Amino acid sequence: MIEKRQGAVKQITSHSNPIVKEIKGLVAQRKHRSQSGLFVAEGLKLATDALEAGWGVRYLALGPEARDNPVAQKAAAAAKARGALILEASTAVMSAMTRKDNPQMVVGVYEQKLLGARDIDPAGTTLWVALDRVRDPGNLGTIIRTVDAVGGAGVMLVGDCTDPFAVEAVRATMGSLFHVPLAKLGKDEFKSLAEKWPGTVAATHLKGSVDYRTPDYAEPVLLVMGNEQKGLEDDMAAACRTLIRIPQVGQADSLNLAVATGVALYEIRRKHLEL
Amino acid sequence: MIEKRQGAVKQITSHSNPIVKEIKGLVAQRKHRSQSGLFVAEGLKLATDALEAGWGVRYLALGPEARDNPVAQKAAAAAKARGALILEASTAVMSAMTRKDNPQMVVGVYEQKLLGARDIDPAGTTLWVALDRVRDPGNLGTIIRTVDAVGGAGVMLVGDCTDPFAVEAVRATMGSLFHVPLAKLGKDEFKSLAEKWPGTVAATHLKGSVDYRTPDYAEPVLLVMGNEQKGLEDDMAAACRTLIRIPQVGQADSLNLAVATGVALYEIRRKHLEL
Repeated sequence: MIEKRQGAVKQITSHSNPIVKEIKGLVAQRKHRSQSGLFVAEGLKLATDALEAGWGVRYLALGPEARDNPVAQKAAAAAKARGALILEASTAVMSAMTRKDNPQMVVGVYEQKLLGARDIDPAGTTLWVALDRVRDPGNLGTIIRTVDAVGGAGVMLVGDCTDPFAVEAVRATMGSLFHVPLAKLGKDEFKSLAEKWPGTVAATHLKGSVDYRTPDYAEPVLLVMGNEQKGLEDDMAAACRTLIRIPQVGQADSLNLAVATGVALYEIRRKHLEL
Repeated sequence: MIEKRQGAVKQITSHSNPIVKEIKGLVAQRKHRSQSGLFVAEGLKLATDALEAGWGVRYLALGPEARDNPVAQKAAAAAKARGALILEASTAVMSAMTRKDNPQMVVGVYEQKLLGARDIDPAGTTLWVALDRVRDPGNLGTIIRTVDAVGGAGVMLVGDCTDPFAVEAVRATMGSLFHVPLAKLGKDEFKSLAEKWPGTVAATHLKGSVDYRTPDYAEPVLLVMGNEQKGLEDDMAAACRTLIRIPQVGQADSLNLAVATGVALYEIRRKHLEL
């Protein structure tokens, strides 16, 4: 189905063009993303981030406004030099691709990168975050953005997580997706990694008896966060050496997952962050 | 248009029932919410929160599953006693009301509460958060949830903010909407309030020269956060005595607004939060 001619420029005016259909599929369905190993990121900033960070780019679609935009033209030239097919599309086609009324002027299709358990070496790193069955793409993307901001080494997705390459997740990373390594682990792989982890393995947990301000967080730190509704699974919690708790005084039952992760990360990095 | 007979039970099977139309309008359009002073909150937990906190309830719609649920029945009895009209609806009607494929078993219509500038008295409070033109309903709801968790006194919405009574904002509060007072202020009202605020007025700002870990945050604290894209307006920043900065070391441009607010709030309440 997919046009193989790369490193070229192609005008697209029809909604039924097979590349438009393919991009629509990548936006709408996880199945399409995992089968192709591709994903869609909207916007010029993310295109620039992706190209600077050396990610593989398959297509770069440019709306009419991008034709007079020097930054967009520079991104297009860089993408083309790297073998991407450049698509010049109407606003209506950009809108159809991304299912948005006000599409961005640039939409890119990139190659997914996901590490496995054996790619993770704690030596020389200071901080990883592991997420147990995270469900909300906005939370996942926001956590990736925060891990970038505190200089973390990466994010592990443990068990059945939401797709980090879904459009909403990618959007919430604000480009940090292209800077923060992601890994996918089975639960047993995680437990085995946690067991031999050299520094701190700390999980936030309702039964946590340690105030999150107490540990000295010897590096490397592995911060483990549970599912939005159910928290951390018991056997996952058992694999974590320190169960921490973020105190709450109001009538709220819990913090939002991305907020709790942010509060914990800034505490862990408290002694290492400088203006 | 709207049925006035309150404190009663009514079976609804038709999608064209005027109450169903009115609830659809409240879900879909800010105009409907502000004209009527009503809003929709989905779910049994939020209904229970609203009733416990004494909010005015206009309708409580129950899907089929709610009829055998003792908690739902208790909420319905409490709402009826408070003059609400109880609607017994099919799953299809519940779905149509909320425009969701999998509707919650309970959907409530409540009366909005919004304070004004003159209702805010810093005396005796420890912490307020002011948001300058917040745009994202998920961010706003999440911030209300975090303010609840740290025992804050309330949230001020300054200037043209997203609607706190939009369904997505309400959902993100996880019920904290019913526990955290909200106020709506014009920019001049805010500036005048900030000028005479007795304790700390701290804003996170890109030009902030003070590390967020440095101030002693004398109470009452007014924490001021700017718009997601543009940050805090210059004249708003000028009204704040302390401009703080949350350090970032990665390639991320900034933190998500709700995460930044959470990190700042937990720092401000650092000495006051106990497990």
